[in-house]
Amino acid sequence: MPELGDREREGTIELLGVIAYGSISGFTRMAADSEMARDLVLKRALASMAVREFQSHEQLCDHIVALGGDPVAAMAPFEDAFEAYHARTRPRDLLEGMVKAYIGDGIARDFFVEISRYVDPAARAVIEQTGGLQADRDTIVAAVRRGIREDPRRGGPLALWGRRLMGEALTQGQVVAAQREALSELVLGLSHDRPGATLEEVGELMQRLTDRHQQRMARLGMSA
Amino acid sequence: MPELGDREREGTIELLGVIAYGSISGFTRMAADSEMARDLVLKRALASMAVREFQSHEQLCDHIVALGGDPVAAMAPFEDAFEAYHARTRPRDLLEGMVKAYIGDGIARDFFVEISRYVDPAARAVIEQTGGLQADRDTIVAAVRRGIREDPRRGGPLALWGRRLMGEALTQGQVVAAQREALSELVLGLSHDRPGATLEEVGELMQRLTDRHQQRMARLGMSA
Repeated sequence: MPELGDREREGTIELLGVIAYGSISGFTRMAADSEMARDLVLKRALASMAVREFQSHEQLCDHIVALGGDPVAAMAPFEDAFEAYHARTRPRDLLEGMVKAYIGDGIARDFFVEISRYVDPAARAVIEQTGGLQADRDTIVAAVRRGIREDPRRGGPLALWGRRLMGEALTQGQVVAAQREALSELVLGLSHDRPGATLEEVGELMQRLTDRHQQRMARLGMSA
Repeated sequence: MPELGDREREGTIELLGVIAYGSISGFTRMAADSEMARDLVLKRALASMAVREFQSHEQLCDHIVALGGDPVAAMAPFEDAFEAYHARTRPRDLLEGMVKAYIGDGIARDFFVEISRYVDPAARAVIEQTGGLQADRDTIVAAVRRGIREDPRRGGPLALWGRRLMGEALTQGQVVAAQREALSELVLGLSHDRPGATLEEVGELMQRLTDRHQQRMARLGMSA
């Protein structure tokens, strides 16, 4: 078990809790959205993305327990934010569902990789293994591009949809960050003796998240 | 690779196809139903049952490929039957969803174990590892019993619901069996040199399925 100070431990459990709840809610939504796919190859790609979320969820919960925390208690504070995100971004059809799976998974992965720089190596290792498989992402990207090629009128609204996903994710992320003190202290390096993020670095982090989002949108054939 | 005659191979691929489609459609429905659970322990149990279905699906597809078949083509003939089953048994709330997860998983497992007696050992091994985990089933059974204890008026309608699930499963099963000749030949031992089922044994098999269904209903605190 890693030796963490109380406050660092608390912040780490909060961080693992937010990712763990994000994973189980991502699992549920993505699995439900996979029902819209009639094409079995696509259905399997979406289902496989969802299953990876569940596996991440389990590993994150195991690590919360290893740190002496209770996974259900650790996840509870983040329920509202994720449920609000999903309620506000319910895909109306398969194309929207696929864009959400790809864009949402991407934003989450980027964020976790960024933030894992500020946690101890054991938690970092657990966080870094989250996220979907490249093969499934490739299947989804190809299907979205095909969908837009077949009906070019979908391109504009889907680009708006992608922007909205990013906007809602940032909104809910800020709600969470503002409420969780131990988590903010962890990122800012106030609860441990490794270097934390300066405010300038937090700004740069946001810029990188935005850049990578634009790259994903471009891969889907859309401008962000 | 197992050495099967053409007709046996065809029947085995049909059997793996029906189970593989049942697994992916079970995954999707069960994962979607897990969204109704607010209790995280329950949500995880339902999600875990769903994930097991997906893992079964992948292993079944791998074995179809190993036999020289195409999983998507092998599953296609069974899509309508499963979609009809799920459309006719859409849970209206979490209690119905949990009863469906437990009862449906149980009927499927019983059926697969019975039928795997008539296939070659390699396919049998793949089929036998399908189905949920005992710990998840126990969590679900306890939650259903608790739900009925808290609101005893739910008991009667839920027992009817359990009977309906069994009825719909048998109906769709018979539709499938009547349509798939190679599969029927496999079970009746007409396409290989191991003993097949006599008609009397098919009757006994149905009786065992019914008996075990009643045991599960009793475990939920209901009479079948």
